[in-house]
Amino acid sequence: MIHKHHRPSGAVVFGDLDLAPRGGVVWHDGSVTDHAVQPRAERGRPRAAAAHRPDLSATEQILDAAAQLFVERGFAATSTRAIADRVGIRQASLYYHFPSKEQILKVLLMRTVEPSTRVAAYLDAAPASAVVRLAALISFDTDQLARSAHNLGTLYFLPEIRNDLLEPFRIERARLRDTYAALIAASVEAEVRADLGPAGSAGSESGLDYLVDVVFGLVESVIAIRADRPDEDADALVATILYSCLRVLGHDGAGGRRITEHARELLEARPAESIP
Amino acid sequence: MIHKHHRPSGAVVFGDLDLAPRGGVVWHDGSVTDHAVQPRAERGRPRAAAAHRPDLSATEQILDAAAQLFVERGFAATSTRAIADRVGIRQASLYYHFPSKEQILKVLLMRTVEPSTRVAAYLDAAPASAVVRLAALISFDTDQLARSAHNLGTLYFLPEIRNDLLEPFRIERARLRDTYAALIAASVEAEVRADLGPAGSAGSESGLDYLVDVVFGLVESVIAIRADRPDEDADALVATILYSCLRVLGHDGAGGRRITEHARELLEARPAESIP
Repeated sequence: MIHKHHRPSGAVVFGDLDLAPRGGVVWHDGSVTDHAVQPRAERGRPRAAAAHRPDLSATEQILDAAAQLFVERGFAATSTRAIADRVGIRQASLYYHFPSKEQILKVLLMRTVEPSTRVAAYLDAAPASAVVRLAALISFDTDQLARSAHNLGTLYFLPEIRNDLLEPFRIERARLRDTYAALIAASVEAEVRADLGPAGSAGSESGLDYLVDVVFGLVESVIAIRADRPDEDADALVATILYSCLRVLGHDGAGGRRITEHARELLEARPAESIP
Repeated sequence: MIHKHHRPSGAVVFGDLDLAPRGGVVWHDGSVTDHAVQPRAERGRPRAAAAHRPDLSATEQILDAAAQLFVERGFAATSTRAIADRVGIRQASLYYHFPSKEQILKVLLMRTVEPSTRVAAYLDAAPASAVVRLAALISFDTDQLARSAHNLGTLYFLPEIRNDLLEPFRIERARLRDTYAALIAASVEAEVRADLGPAGSAGSESGLDYLVDVVFGLVESVIAIRADRPDEDADALVATILYSCLRVLGHDGAGGRRITEHARELLEARPAESIP
């Protein structure tokens, strides 16, 4: 049996952002995102119609409706008017919260990586071997991609992903990939390292670069699998992906099971402030 | 060192379709696609402007321009007018070849799977063990996704993929996945099978289902990796993905290397008519 990891209590379903007192968004490294991206605080403005998701704040309702429409109809085919209509607010009210459709996309995309970079920061200093920390990151990251509302990861394939405005997202995701690269370099078994060897003439580390592509690709493959087979059990999928990543790196059998178990404990031991 | 497989000579870059005498498209199983999808034969119609790719037939120029625009700008944001403009023909001429933008998308998507289902049909009767045939399929399929013009696989994430008109594509891709599932079931090592066990209560084969998701996901992860890192060497990427798939299934070390070598020989031994 694969030892499924239990989701740590309070595990994020839709990502989250810290709101700093002055209204900026604070990332795990202390950097603050410019105010334009920042969803504004609630002001209780009148609604044009009944709210689509009355359990959420207006900002969250806009984000949720936009995510659903972007994934269902495409980004280009979705107007801010359509988003406002779905929430049940006037278009002018939407612009009060977000200056543009692109800014909504930026917040949504940030939420697909930010919880994982925050966990990566916790794991960076955690008292465990590299492979256990890697397994914890794979497990957390796959899990939150597997559970994001509306499978937000499909937005990675939008042509608009190359928009200048989305550079902070691309930087944040590249940073996450760098964390993977460092942990993989310290985790890969000697046998696998020897098999990979130098790929081409670009130097001795390049075989490893492709392994990083594949492990990062395996984690994000959960997006495509969900899109194809929405009924698959998220726990089983996350467990199978972690199992496969560990085998690829040379950790199988009892060793792989121990790593999986320690990774689960490491995630459960997170202090509350690192839980998004 | 990973033993890179050399691309069989004549390996497909952009897929291909057989044109039957009566103008239908014949698939590997002998079924014929309806005429509406079928690019019409050349008639030497006058051009409004210089052709964008004068080395290709008008039909192929339309497909190539459409693929590029769909991937660069998105499907919804691309008009048939924009496609015609890029080819340098009048919009009316485009409609002579294709009745709609959706039909162009259908042909493009078919081309991402059809070469692989054709190779799968050859491998079905090939004199080799299941794991060698699976490795040959993974290698061929990954390779052609890695080299498709404009990374066509990104179109899998279009919201329009659920369009009724695209059902033949979804059926063809499901058929390819079924081939993977059968070969994986016959290839997975006992140790891995025991690790997977029954996932949940859905029966003893369901652990294997998730492994099929992951292996199929690993093959298609080449699409996301290419989108992210267009400069990666396709040979090295294909080899690393095959290596990783084999490890996931429990075939590593000298056994894995032998399988990879046999798979290469099997692909090279294909009769000319199965080479797209």
